Amino acid sequence: MSERISRRAEQREQRRNRAVRPHPIRPIENKLPPLNLLEEEGVARIHGASMRLLKERGTLIVDYPPALETFRRHGAKVVDNTVYIDEETLLHFIRQAPSTFTLLARNPANHLPIGGNMTIFAPVYGPPFVMDLDNGRRPATLADFENFVKLTYMAEELHCSGGTLVEPNDIPLPERHLDMLMAHIRYSDKAFMGSVTHRNNAIDTVRMCEILFGAEAMQQNPATIALINASSPMRYDDRMFGALEVYAEARQALIITPFIIAGAMSPTTIAATLAQQNAEALFGICYAQMINPGTPVVYGSFLANIDMKSGAPCFGTPEGALAIYGGAQMARHYSLPYRSGGNFTAANLPDAQAGYESAGTMWPTMQAGTNFVLHAAGWLEGGLIAGYEKFVLDLEICGMMAKMAPGIKIDEDEFAWDAYAEVEPGGHFLGSQHTMRHYQTAFYQHKIFTMDNFEKWAEEGSRDSYVRANARWKEMLANYIAPVLDEGKREELEAYVARRRHEIRRGK
Amino acid sequence: MSERISRRAEQREQRRNRAVRPHPIRPIENKLPPLNLLEEEGVARIHGASMRLLKERGTLIVDYPPALETFRRHGAKVVDNTVYIDEETLLHFIRQAPSTFTLLARNPANHLPIGGNMTIFAPVYGPPFVMDLDNGRRPATLADFENFVKLTYMAEELHCSGGTLVEPNDIPLPERHLDMLMAHIRYSDKAFMGSVTHRNNAIDTVRMCEILFGAEAMQQNPATIALINASSPMRYDDRMFGALEVYAEARQALIITPFIIAGAMSPTTIAATLAQQNAEALFGICYAQMINPGTPVVYGSFLANIDMKSGAPCFGTPEGALAIYGGAQMARHYSLPYRSGGNFTAANLPDAQAGYESAGTMWPTMQAGTNFVLHAAGWLEGGLIAGYEKFVLDLEICGMMAKMAPGIKIDEDEFAWDAYAEVEPGGHFLGSQHTMRHYQTAFYQHKIFTMDNFEKWAEEGSRDSYVRANARWKEMLANYIAPVLDEGKREELEAYVARRRHEIRRGK
Repeated sequence: MSERISRRAEQREQRRNRAVRPHPIRPIENKLPPLNLLEEEGVARIHGASMRLLKERGTLIVDYPPALETFRRHGAKVVDNTVYIDEETLLHFIRQAPSTFTLLARNPANHLPIGGNMTIFAPVYGPPFVMDLDNGRRPATLADFENFVKLTYMAEELHCSGGTLVEPNDIPLPERHLDMLMAHIRYSDKAFMGSVTHRNNAIDTVRMCEILFGAEAMQQNPATIALINASSPMRYDDRMFGALEVYAEARQALIITPFIIAGAMSPTTIAATLAQQNAEALFGICYAQMINPGTPVVYGSFLANIDMKSGAPCFGTPEGALAIYGGAQMARHYSLPYRSGGNFTAANLPDAQAGYESAGTMWPTMQAGTNFVLHAAGWLEGGLIAGYEKFVLDLEICGMMAKMAPGIKIDEDEFAWDAYAEVEPGGHFLGSQHTMRHYQTAFYQHKIFTMDNFEKWAEEGSRDSYVRANARWKEMLANYIAPVLDEGKREELEAYVARRRHEIRRGK
Repeated sequence: MSERISRRAEQREQRRNRAVRPHPIRPIENKLPPLNLLEEEGVARIHGASMRLLKERGTLIVDYPPALETFRRHGAKVVDNTVYIDEETLLHFIRQAPSTFTLLARNPANHLPIGGNMTIFAPVYGPPFVMDLDNGRRPATLADFENFVKLTYMAEELHCSGGTLVEPNDIPLPERHLDMLMAHIRYSDKAFMGSVTHRNNAIDTVRMCEILFGAEAMQQNPATIALINASSPMRYDDRMFGALEVYAEARQALIITPFIIAGAMSPTTIAATLAQQNAEALFGICYAQMINPGTPVVYGSFLANIDMKSGAPCFGTPEGALAIYGGAQMARHYSLPYRSGGNFTAANLPDAQAGYESAGTMWPTMQAGTNFVLHAAGWLEGGLIAGYEKFVLDLEICGMMAKMAPGIKIDEDEFAWDAYAEVEPGGHFLGSQHTMRHYQTAFYQHKIFTMDNFEKWAEEGSRDSYVRANARWKEMLANYIAPVLDEGKREELEAYVARRRHEIRRGK
């Protein structure tokens, strides 16, 4: 062994001693009663309006005749490229979808429970840019993608490795998904999301999952979950439906999410927007069940609104919060898992606005009883930027949500009678036996937010949360060590990727 | 008229043309269903625990024999300085308190409805420091106090002028309250809070209110509302009870608020802390009703928790949110108006942390059905700083809460059938007739937060929300014009203040 290699090995060893692989995930059991914003009548009217849209207005399917044929065969009326479906037919298929399911992770301790009163957090999805305090905003690369996989792996607050964490712009578009999938598999052992935008990407995802999980296991439980967007209003296209079909045939999980900026892709009112979202989500879910009854699906909502002055999308708004609650109630009405919310903001850097808007989305997200929270960390500039500092700042809120989820315990020890026996009126509880017993777990312990008073804080450099977060993500990456991956599987996956890359480059 | 005076008059005239007096306040009718976090059993157990504390542990009253005598006379057991009161006696008095009342403002259009499903916002209370981007943190002065009165008057998001907006450290302590009261009266016509900390301050408040409102009107409805804190745990002192007594005798409103940092002034558990808070709040309310049955009161909660590592108080925490909900349920249990929440943060400047924590407090505050929200604007550093920029940033959240309060409308026009007749699947709703009809009021319109994309935002100077807020409060102050005040009343008030100042300086 050369001296250089041996020193490198030594450094690696030192890092390993400092670094600790993260604990298995702890999905959140959300015991807060969901806030039911709509009365029963409201749910019924939104349901009714969406049935009317589906039956009378119809849903356009662009460039994808197989889907038109599937709908026709199952009893829907099809005129040109538009599908008109009635309530009875639709609900027959909606009822085939399971109300809960388990998403496999390659580390069995990280399997993800989806639905019921469970809540799980996944990082930001889709930004073409990244930003950090040192280098500002720039196009994302594969190296950034890998960094965010590593950060997500290290973050105990996140339960899922996510999907397109950022767009790796330095890799040609047609083969990009292969590198993203390999990064999720190599650098994390949390459950990851499947590739969409083309049916071939979906096929590659399924094949690679088969290598990793085995085809048989994937028939029992999905090994991946893919995000399918409607092109609102009332429209799906070949890219999304093509991918949906591949996943449904392989019985892999789907999040069917209308992507709506109200005022542009839907009317300005929340009721109409919820009805349209409901129609679009159910239409996609229905299609998945037509292809393969019992396919695990999540009722998705991505709902912002435009700024009526500039036309720009707004995030963290009161309308957004109301829509999160309304969407949750609709999903519960059909006994489907619900995806919504995240740490949304329109801000272009992690300033106070970003904090207000993000928390202003996450609290309703949690209190609505959302099951799958995409964009739970890293989101900036309306989703165009994945921010390194924003990512770790958002983790603080995710941690708080987990701490809030059990609600208020009211068993006898919680009333601390021994403390009151010990502490006089006007006295201090810090030293009491009861406090000592509860010391470790009493309150949420902050990682980045500071509770220091002004003097101490100023003495230590007056670092705002942006600056503190900068140190934090670097520390997390420095302490990263990869999870163990079976050597045989790794080789097989690499061979698959090499072959497919070759085929793609040759235009296959 | 000299040229100089005439030019000044001209400038004033120009400013008047630009400036517009604010519209009457629009208190928020909160139609969101309150989130009932506790089951009925939980409410019953917290009630039961607090009754046990009051009866068995007792409440200490420091240096105020008249209160001990009042409790004894009304059937409580008094041993030394400690009062032991049983459930029946206590609830007899609690039931005397009205469940709603109106707080008078000198502009009748600004009368404040307290209780029921109404929510009103008041600015920060008590900070000894102020901070702005230009000059940093410094001791607050009377000029700062006046600025915050003016900003509160200008802010349509705030309904109440508040009380001790900041401590005017440049005025001697014994006469400070006179200047604060005069500033509220001169520079605003919104309802203001009474002075506490000494019974003489309360007497001055009542006298000045009598000049402004007339003693008779004040018997029908309170003209001021005073914040009375318990010295937790289970203790009241002469300063607070002395002031309470003056207000109750004059039938003026009271907010009875245990001030609890859990882990220090109460046990570490939420259940015990809620029970203690309940005991302390009801004890103070009971005292007010013993003095003058029917005195309007608000059940108050100020509940943070300590950082178990440093002992510092934490704000915007999950425990804080749970406590806000729990407290609201207890207040509803006794049919009392509820005060809690605000734009709390432990941050020392308006950074991302401040935003996350503030929004993370305000959303539960609103969703708990809180009636009186003190500290709704300006709070920094755990309440030690009133921040000029933070103040206007918080207003954005207050505006959002008002917009969220009506919930989701579901009448027929909300479903936008004409828009769907007009817009094809895949089309755009921006130009539709329905959008045109709803254009003005569709969505919350931001004042400080930016929805601009990165390019536009960078072009205009990459100003974060701190910098944008700096421009905003200056603009508000520049556009300020005082409300009209009856000349006779003003003179009478000034004479009263002059006389009292003289007496105070002579040690009376």
